[in-house]
Amino acid sequence: MTDSRFQRLTALRDALARADLDALLVTSLANIRYLTGFSGSNALVVITAKESLLLTDFRYATQVQAEVGAAATIRIEASNLWAGLWAHLTASPAIARLGFESFHMVHRDFQRLLEQGARWQWRPTTDLVEVLRVCKDSDEVAKIERAVAIAEAALHATLPQIRRGLSETQLAGILEHNLRDAGSEAFPFASIVASGPRSALPHARASERELHAGDFVLLDFGAVYEGYCSDITRTVVLGSASEAQRDVYAIVREANARASGAIRVGMPGMAADAVAREYIDARGYGEEFGHSLGHGIGLEIHEAPRLAKSIDAPLLAGTVVTIEPGIYRAGWGGVRIEDDVLLTDNGPRLLTSFARDLIEID
Amino acid sequence: MTDSRFQRLTALRDALARADLDALLVTSLANIRYLTGFSGSNALVVITAKESLLLTDFRYATQVQAEVGAAATIRIEASNLWAGLWAHLTASPAIARLGFESFHMVHRDFQRLLEQGARWQWRPTTDLVEVLRVCKDSDEVAKIERAVAIAEAALHATLPQIRRGLSETQLAGILEHNLRDAGSEAFPFASIVASGPRSALPHARASERELHAGDFVLLDFGAVYEGYCSDITRTVVLGSASEAQRDVYAIVREANARASGAIRVGMPGMAADAVAREYIDARGYGEEFGHSLGHGIGLEIHEAPRLAKSIDAPLLAGTVVTIEPGIYRAGWGGVRIEDDVLLTDNGPRLLTSFARDLIEID
Repeated sequence: MTDSRFQRLTALRDALARADLDALLVTSLANIRYLTGFSGSNALVVITAKESLLLTDFRYATQVQAEVGAAATIRIEASNLWAGLWAHLTASPAIARLGFESFHMVHRDFQRLLEQGARWQWRPTTDLVEVLRVCKDSDEVAKIERAVAIAEAALHATLPQIRRGLSETQLAGILEHNLRDAGSEAFPFASIVASGPRSALPHARASERELHAGDFVLLDFGAVYEGYCSDITRTVVLGSASEAQRDVYAIVREANARASGAIRVGMPGMAADAVAREYIDARGYGEEFGHSLGHGIGLEIHEAPRLAKSIDAPLLAGTVVTIEPGIYRAGWGGVRIEDDVLLTDNGPRLLTSFARDLIEID
Repeated sequence: MTDSRFQRLTALRDALARADLDALLVTSLANIRYLTGFSGSNALVVITAKESLLLTDFRYATQVQAEVGAAATIRIEASNLWAGLWAHLTASPAIARLGFESFHMVHRDFQRLLEQGARWQWRPTTDLVEVLRVCKDSDEVAKIERAVAIAEAALHATLPQIRRGLSETQLAGILEHNLRDAGSEAFPFASIVASGPRSALPHARASERELHAGDFVLLDFGAVYEGYCSDITRTVVLGSASEAQRDVYAIVREANARASGAIRVGMPGMAADAVAREYIDARGYGEEFGHSLGHGIGLEIHEAPRLAKSIDAPLLAGTVVTIEPGIYRAGWGGVRIEDDVLLTDNGPRLLTSFARDLIEID
């Protein structure tokens, strides 16, 4: 942990030097965790060529010491983190030109830079920390693997508990309880439990709808282990699947398998997306696969890179992405099958191993 | 629902006219839900004197029709919501001067306004919709009451399941399962389950620590019903409470009761905070109550107003706030007791009714 933080800081400092910046003001909580280890919900971090400063509030006084240790100078601010920032910068005459994170600062705070921070020069930056986060080191991969194992254990425990008459919300409760029992420290996003026609809503969450025989039941959820996320989707049928359900399921399964097998380091994100999309399109369901193929996972549940039509940047070794094709027929139902894949120089490695055969729940 | 949305739009349009704005670009998802009913995770809304336009993506095509209906013109954008926005504005010659939400737009999107949106005049606004949200109507209060009832039912079901050897994470799983069974559609924030010395961490979440006899067990959690949140904290003792635990608990309980009894419409937030703070301070624990007394709840788990030392604005009728004093002794443990209170012209009305006596779990 300590070692990787120092490596990250070194890489970031090189980037700051190349951008001719004396310092970076880090406001993204995920970037702050990556650089310092701090997992609280309120912090500002300033990285200079020689120093790392972390400002947080009273609530985290004990936690921040345990998580950050010597990786940054810690200041607990009694009132407002911004007041602490101005005091620190005023006492640091070597800092003249600072970057800030354009994607992670609201306009109101940007105005603070221009007003209370007017004596410094501020430059918008994008992705200075995020580009470091794309390629996971072995420690990060191990944490994602653990988060995958937790999610799969929870799914194994949940499937036998699915039955007619259960509401989607109740089923979400069972799944989330199993995630906690398997050791998930949080839920990376609101669990999607969508049954019957609601399975055609790609972002359905869970409702009071009760499960009926013949329903597709789509479960899209994840686990968190030491801050790192997993993200998995399986779609099952309650009772016996119809011919039409089998057909759609088989197409999605094949699209998933083709994309997971074909994705490679160096391939543009759009090419990975195309593998699944062209197959689904050729089977006549192109219009029913309306979202992109996948996204990176790590400290955030959605992070770089995206696997989408518009993305031409080549994929890098050490990236972990979701592969999640789907077919959604409004009013009828939908199927999505989502796996997590690590890209290595030796090819893709599936981190998820849960069965992809169509499961019919008695 | 429909009626209240039109009232809200009328009030907002009055505010736009006063601010000499032709339109407001709404980017806060909570504000979008308040104005249109849409609960998805990706949308832009433009409100003019005569029209409401909502832009979202494919994933929400079915959901947005059901939730928004005739309350706005709906456009499903194939690629990027911003491209749709520019097209709409270009086709609307009456729109010249627009407000945007300074607290709810990242700098990167603000740059879009200055670049692709350079032909329009953009004005930062703050709280134009939030000020409407402060005073809840009877329909909103009823939803918060339901969210409170769900949280309390879950707590009733959970307390008998607390036992030694359970980890905080496992206990969180039990609590969250009970929240789902009671009908919570989501978790408004990461459940805090903090035991023993960890109860002194005001934002502890849940860890692998196992519960021991003599531990304080602090549970801070909430429920969501039709988008509206509740927020409740109770602290119990596993086994028999020590004298010191009883003393600290009694002080927090009395501070909670005094603040809940004294808070009034027209009182500044700082005065409500002072009721609890002065009592705790007089008992010698002022330094150990490091956070503010409470915050508004509604569509968001933290919204206006704050009950804090620095807030001198008078409290309004129809506001729902938390009252959550605490005492935190590092390395020893902490107590927080949190209720939800509706402010009416006839005085405060406690929405939470769960017992505040110290509970010792056998």
